[in-house]
Amino acid sequence: VNALAFNSNKVQELRRLLGRRSSRHDERRFVVEGPVLVAEAVAAGWTCEAQFVPEGSAGAVEGAGEVFELADGVLERVASTETPQAPLAIVAMPDDLAVDSLLSAAAFVVVLDRVGDPGNLGTILRSAEAAGADVVVLTPGSVDPFNPKVVRASAGALFHVPILTAGIDDVAAAGLELFGTTSHGFRGRTVVSYTEAALTGRIAVVMGNEAAGLPDEWDDTVGPVRSWITIPHGGRSESLNVAMATTVIVFEAARQRALSR
Amino acid sequence: VNALAFNSNKVQELRRLLGRRSSRHDERRFVVEGPVLVAEAVAAGWTCEAQFVPEGSAGAVEGAGEVFELADGVLERVASTETPQAPLAIVAMPDDLAVDSLLSAAAFVVVLDRVGDPGNLGTILRSAEAAGADVVVLTPGSVDPFNPKVVRASAGALFHVPILTAGIDDVAAAGLELFGTTSHGFRGRTVVSYTEAALTGRIAVVMGNEAAGLPDEWDDTVGPVRSWITIPHGGRSESLNVAMATTVIVFEAARQRALSR
Repeated sequence: VNALAFNSNKVQELRRLLGRRSSRHDERRFVVEGPVLVAEAVAAGWTCEAQFVPEGSAGAVEGAGEVFELADGVLERVASTETPQAPLAIVAMPDDLAVDSLLSAAAFVVVLDRVGDPGNLGTILRSAEAAGADVVVLTPGSVDPFNPKVVRASAGALFHVPILTAGIDDVAAAGLELFGTTSHGFRGRTVVSYTEAALTGRIAVVMGNEAAGLPDEWDDTVGPVRSWITIPHGGRSESLNVAMATTVIVFEAARQRALSR
Repeated sequence: VNALAFNSNKVQELRRLLGRRSSRHDERRFVVEGPVLVAEAVAAGWTCEAQFVPEGSAGAVEGAGEVFELADGVLERVASTETPQAPLAIVAMPDDLAVDSLLSAAAFVVVLDRVGDPGNLGTILRSAEAAGADVVVLTPGSVDPFNPKVVRASAGALFHVPILTAGIDDVAAAGLELFGTTSHGFRGRTVVSYTEAALTGRIAVVMGNEAAGLPDEWDDTVGPVRSWITIPHGGRSESLNVAMATTVIVFEAARQRALSR
């Protein structure tokens, strides 16, 4: 069998899956890059359909599907990083998760409302998993969790924490108490420090878009989010980005929840 | 006055200051990029010696020094980002800070032992400043805090929290209690959860290199670090990177310190 050229069908498929959200979701497949992440996907029980390594390389990962060889220079042209590591693996997306039953069973949820930066989402997935969140919810308009930058930044957390796409009302309907996070307060919102909020029950921590935050029309009398928290800090505004703020809050929730058990 | 060409002395000086640690420290100057960060440097009282904008642009920042114009395309060639924003400003490094007196006066210190990634250092500076740390100490072998990637990732925190280069023994000599952080424990170390450690006195949180952690030969009977903490988390090892771990720990310290006041 010859090594695959850049213009071969299989390589072009890899390119589409790396580059296009619509291709990933139409085909229900995405790409995982590098030996550590591919092995993590296999270990977590995700189905790897095929893997691609440079011709003559010994870089295939056991259990990560049929091995295809890439002609000289093709890995570098197709991968999403400047210094790519083989294998690139095509991985099947899990079946759509059942929103209602997952949320009804969850006690600790992180909701991201239109978070747009892949690095932020990846970092938040790491924090959420490490802090013991049951589910991460993305509202419509969020960055695709199967974007290669998210996959990389999540450092494997993607394979371990269930990710739903759902609306804020779905989360409220599951009986979770919603804690909106704000860096600046807003009329109609009573805001308390995140360390003074009781984060021990069935809760959802709700984080907003990087630039816009959570919708201004949500206040503590109307709309799904009735409790508002903030991270007090010295000096300048906007000291923390959304990934750092989420990390701080989910670990405070984990601390309180461990104490209350 | 003509706009500066790429091979002009001033543009080559910018390149050197962006690209070379030795040039920055020999000349005691570094480069700050973009209107938000340059304005932050000016507002924080740092001395901007010169600023560079594209020819015909209105992008100069008030108070950021003499304005020089760059010929077409020069900004893109010299800046450290793919989509550069003017101005680039040459900023004077502060005088070397007095290690002994700063550490003796400090109550809440973050020590980074040979942290190497500029993005991690920038994020840690943001967290440390937001959590109210008095000083950040870098041990010899750490990434340069005036590296353009650190400057950018710090989002202005660099201008607000004093940064020292010093050894771990200098920190111990200042009478601070050192809390070493470990993700895996080590023989000879008694490790407690970071939420169970008393982080309220005169403390230094000590974080290790991304790959190596803190030196294995430091244990709780020999060497400067007598107290060891860890962040418990579910499932997989190495769930958090050093920047995320530092963020979690400094905000727990801030929480405890606010309660104890």
